[in-house]
Amino acid sequence: MSNTFTKLVSQLTHSLEQENDHELLISIEKYHPAKLGRLLESLPNKYRDDFWSLIPVNCKGEVLLSVHRELRQFLIKKTSEADLLKCLSTLQMDELADIDADLPLPVVSAMVEAMDSQRKERYRTVASFPDNTAGGMMDVDATAVRKDVSLKAVYRYLCKLRKKEGMLPEQLDQLVVVDRNNKVQGTLYLSDLVSMDNSLSVGDVMKNDVPLIDSLQSASQVAQIFEDHDLISAPVVDENNFLLGRITVDDVIDVLKHNSEQRLLASAGLNEELDMFAPVSHISLNRAIWLGTNLITAFVAAWVIGFFEASIEQLVALAVLMPVVASMGGVTGSQTLTVVTRGIARDLVSSANIVSLTLHELKVSFINGILWAAVVFLITILWYDDWQLGGVFALALFVVSLTGTLSGALIPIVLKKLGVDPAIAGGVILTTITDAVGFLIFLGTATYILI
Amino acid sequence: MSNTFTKLVSQLTHSLEQENDHELLISIEKYHPAKLGRLLESLPNKYRDDFWSLIPVNCKGEVLLSVHRELRQFLIKKTSEADLLKCLSTLQMDELADIDADLPLPVVSAMVEAMDSQRKERYRTVASFPDNTAGGMMDVDATAVRKDVSLKAVYRYLCKLRKKEGMLPEQLDQLVVVDRNNKVQGTLYLSDLVSMDNSLSVGDVMKNDVPLIDSLQSASQVAQIFEDHDLISAPVVDENNFLLGRITVDDVIDVLKHNSEQRLLASAGLNEELDMFAPVSHISLNRAIWLGTNLITAFVAAWVIGFFEASIEQLVALAVLMPVVASMGGVTGSQTLTVVTRGIARDLVSSANIVSLTLHELKVSFINGILWAAVVFLITILWYDDWQLGGVFALALFVVSLTGTLSGALIPIVLKKLGVDPAIAGGVILTTITDAVGFLIFLGTATYILI
Repeated sequence: MSNTFTKLVSQLTHSLEQENDHELLISIEKYHPAKLGRLLESLPNKYRDDFWSLIPVNCKGEVLLSVHRELRQFLIKKTSEADLLKCLSTLQMDELADIDADLPLPVVSAMVEAMDSQRKERYRTVASFPDNTAGGMMDVDATAVRKDVSLKAVYRYLCKLRKKEGMLPEQLDQLVVVDRNNKVQGTLYLSDLVSMDNSLSVGDVMKNDVPLIDSLQSASQVAQIFEDHDLISAPVVDENNFLLGRITVDDVIDVLKHNSEQRLLASAGLNEELDMFAPVSHISLNRAIWLGTNLITAFVAAWVIGFFEASIEQLVALAVLMPVVASMGGVTGSQTLTVVTRGIARDLVSSANIVSLTLHELKVSFINGILWAAVVFLITILWYDDWQLGGVFALALFVVSLTGTLSGALIPIVLKKLGVDPAIAGGVILTTITDAVGFLIFLGTATYILI
Repeated sequence: MSNTFTKLVSQLTHSLEQENDHELLISIEKYHPAKLGRLLESLPNKYRDDFWSLIPVNCKGEVLLSVHRELRQFLIKKTSEADLLKCLSTLQMDELADIDADLPLPVVSAMVEAMDSQRKERYRTVASFPDNTAGGMMDVDATAVRKDVSLKAVYRYLCKLRKKEGMLPEQLDQLVVVDRNNKVQGTLYLSDLVSMDNSLSVGDVMKNDVPLIDSLQSASQVAQIFEDHDLISAPVVDENNFLLGRITVDDVIDVLKHNSEQRLLASAGLNEELDMFAPVSHISLNRAIWLGTNLITAFVAAWVIGFFEASIEQLVALAVLMPVVASMGGVTGSQTLTVVTRGIARDLVSSANIVSLTLHELKVSFINGILWAAVVFLITILWYDDWQLGGVFALALFVVSLTGTLSGALIPIVLKKLGVDPAIAGGVILTTITDAVGFLIFLGTATYILI
């Protein structure tokens, strides 16, 4: 598939260069909106405008939804308000609520104005929750039935609903069973509905094993519940278990993808919402913050080295070998940091086991510290024919390995307590510590013993 | 939830220390197997044995499935063959095929022996595909119906199937429609089944919009298809479109989680399958490879510095400032590397747009290079009162920024062509280049101009 997609992007770029709209239209019609979204993300800025204008209006809403924020804002700017309203009419309530912050205000007002009173109310319910909560993720069109009706009556209701709405909600695997006050009592799986005697009542067949999602739970918590229970959909309720809506597994997949991307990009100080082909000035500014932070930490290391200028002048081999010490400390530390940060993200590491885990990591680092200290000792003797220098080098490497591991285990725990995401700040703090400690131990011991 | 889980681990550890089995049993019964699996992963080795023995046998199969490989092998070793057979009896075919490589051979043989001939054949079908293909992921119990029967007959068939098997397959959102040769013709959604006139035939109601999954497609490709089309399940077919089985969205979520974990851990040279509390010797060996690789690259940098020992002896400030140059080059490069690697993983970057993207990144790095070169120029003048040194420092920082960006863009493309995963090797290669080039440019220019 990968190669096919790559070919497709080449073909598209070619057609766009040739302004061969006819061929483009034929390809566009074949593709799913999510794929069109990825194609748009792959195209350099100069082609996006043309490509966007060729996408049929009934697809554009879903394409807008599938691309990342910066590109979405770009495409929205390129679309007239009247066209935007047409694009948006194909989206569900929760989808609208996801992108409304990027829409021009007059469009949002016009869109809400055009809704009937029921839809208006539903839209306001979803829009009242933050995007990254269950309330913000949910679809308000949960199909609910009563406990005391027969399965036959449920069929009749579903047929009627289908005629009225044109279709049943997507990813419908179960109906929510509620009492007359809209309080959730259980769920009726479609697979039970289609395989049980239809004279039974909903109460006879309904299940209680689906967890109810609290509207204020975070998106990541919702994803964990879906994962643990292999859910396709689940009802969202308020604090009194009154039905507010439902969340479907496609929303959960979006959350998982988003979290995984964010972790990956955060470790390089990047912002997920930023488009690959965003204006150079945007990207430069965004990255400058990270580079500036790194420059400060690099100067901390330089400042430590500065104390030992006299020693380096006398024994210049110190300058040659010192980056090796810092680098090994950084790598050892980052391995522990990654294990602990991942453990925290997956709820596997907590105050209950951090001491055991840190000791375990220190044992590992003790063994590897001794191993690589021995290796650099030998290399130094071969290179400089100086066993004292080799000894100092080996000792510093061993100490910085343990320091790195200890920092790698404690930094994420401390950051977590401070409410900072360890995935973002952990690496920088760790490198600052291992660099500073590495240079200090190596140059300090060398000054004391060798000079 | 995070706090609750942390508390739970504390309580469990406490109960295990006190050997308070009664209290433990009460908590264990409340939890879903996936949660029990995560609890086991959180517990240090010494408690795992006791905790495992308290888990009811009918849960153990799913717990085994949910934990990572190393822990699974540990738990399997702690379980008698007779008990293992009992645990496994609750699992589906595709689940069995996922873990059979970790089971003792006699258990696998006994398990296959105990199956009826139909199950035996199904198991062999799944086991014949590699784990990371659609064939290895699929469940062989796809429920199929014929085109020419009425919806009423489908109901009767499902009721009968339920009576025979005790339940319908999990995550059943659609039935596969096949012809008499088992060739797939479309699918029948349960939501259509329950909302259409039941005198219609399957052929009238079935849909053709569900993509068929080729049994040889990779797990990641399958995940992409599910994501693009918001699928809950999809039929798996062979090269002639004959039905082999079905894949459900819970398997896809597992793939997404697995890929995301792997990317995160790979960047620190770690192996996902390795347990946090695995034996120290295992972990040490696993990490030693990465540390050894890093040691080689660090010595490449040291070797470059070694050429300039005479210059450093004359102007020791060079030793103080050189780590700053290397570090800024590394960070600039890693930002581009992350953008391009992620773009490749998401199929957004290919030969069609890599030139545009590299130029775009170089512009960004040009701006940031100038900015931070100016900053270090000023800092050097303040620190060393030496504008020539400042100029050399600034120039080196600017050149290494561009080198980092260029390497960050090209390394993943080259690795991809060589069939190496850029997420694993990219970072090390990049750092080697930026370190070596950084030291070479800085010390080389300094030697030429200043000394």
